[in-house]
Amino acid sequence: MDEDELRTRYSRPAFEAAVAAAAASLQDGGVPIGAALEKDGRLLATGHNQRVQHGDPTAHGEIDCLRQAGRIGSYAGTILHTTLAPCAMCAGAIVQFGITSVVAGENRTFDGELDWLRSRGVTVLMLGDDRCTELMRQFQQRFPRVWAEDIGALPAEPDGADR
Amino acid sequence: MDEDELRTRYSRPAFEAAVAAAAASLQDGGVPIGAALEKDGRLLATGHNQRVQHGDPTAHGEIDCLRQAGRIGSYAGTILHTTLAPCAMCAGAIVQFGITSVVAGENRTFDGELDWLRSRGVTVLMLGDDRCTELMRQFQQRFPRVWAEDIGALPAEPDGADR
Repeated sequence: MDEDELRTRYSRPAFEAAVAAAAASLQDGGVPIGAALEKDGRLLATGHNQRVQHGDPTAHGEIDCLRQAGRIGSYAGTILHTTLAPCAMCAGAIVQFGITSVVAGENRTFDGELDWLRSRGVTVLMLGDDRCTELMRQFQQRFPRVWAEDIGALPAEPDGADR
Repeated sequence: MDEDELRTRYSRPAFEAAVAAAAASLQDGGVPIGAALEKDGRLLATGHNQRVQHGDPTAHGEIDCLRQAGRIGSYAGTILHTTLAPCAMCAGAIVQFGITSVVAGENRTFDGELDWLRSRGVTVLMLGDDRCTELMRQFQQRFPRVWAEDIGALPAEPDGADR
């Protein structure tokens, strides 16, 4: 489906579940990026970044959500919601799993790989949700090194501060 | 470093650890793709695909290896070994984490995203290792549906056979 169709079809409660997961992660001192997987208006799973909580650098919000969903077989007809524009790893997961519709909260605090996703046939609906941006800004201000770590932007010799 | 330099620098024991992890996964009935993360000749972590063993669709070999390595900070100077050409998700993780050197066992049984990796500045050394190919061929013949599932190629309505 194209972006206009996705706008009319996506489940608002599924997106809200992603926002709630992001907010819960921030409450735990974690990276506030949440995700939700929807199919035909039904919420299959939610997840959020678990770098801080589980010490797992691969557990971005989208990856955690896909993990929580488990082995669902085909991803045809699913919509992946995420509070932030997907990074290269998460965009790659979307492409690899054959997820063709993504609803994203914002891309003001991180560009993500939207052009690449679209070049691979994925429809991306960008909501520009101020709550998602505010969660990220709070986090980036409080824990700039964890954020740098999460996007692979730490300097080569980190001093370990605030990890 | 370029491909020729990577060929002279990579740790053969690290690559062998990836092959051993792949073989161990097949012994468990799992997808036989292994990975290892090396820095300066030192093995930081190994991993293998855990889809079958942990029911985790995101646990490709490379992702499992990066998870096992934990929060190492910067990935500068690391080399990621993998027995099979990385898929889009794993290639995305490599790009996102700033890993710039990849040693891959083979790309006969799966194309992977080698062109995209290289377009993003990653040096990929392809070994063409027959053992890696043989592990994959055995698996693809025994469990074709699990393999289709692992690369996001299941038909839209799976019948659940051999999952």
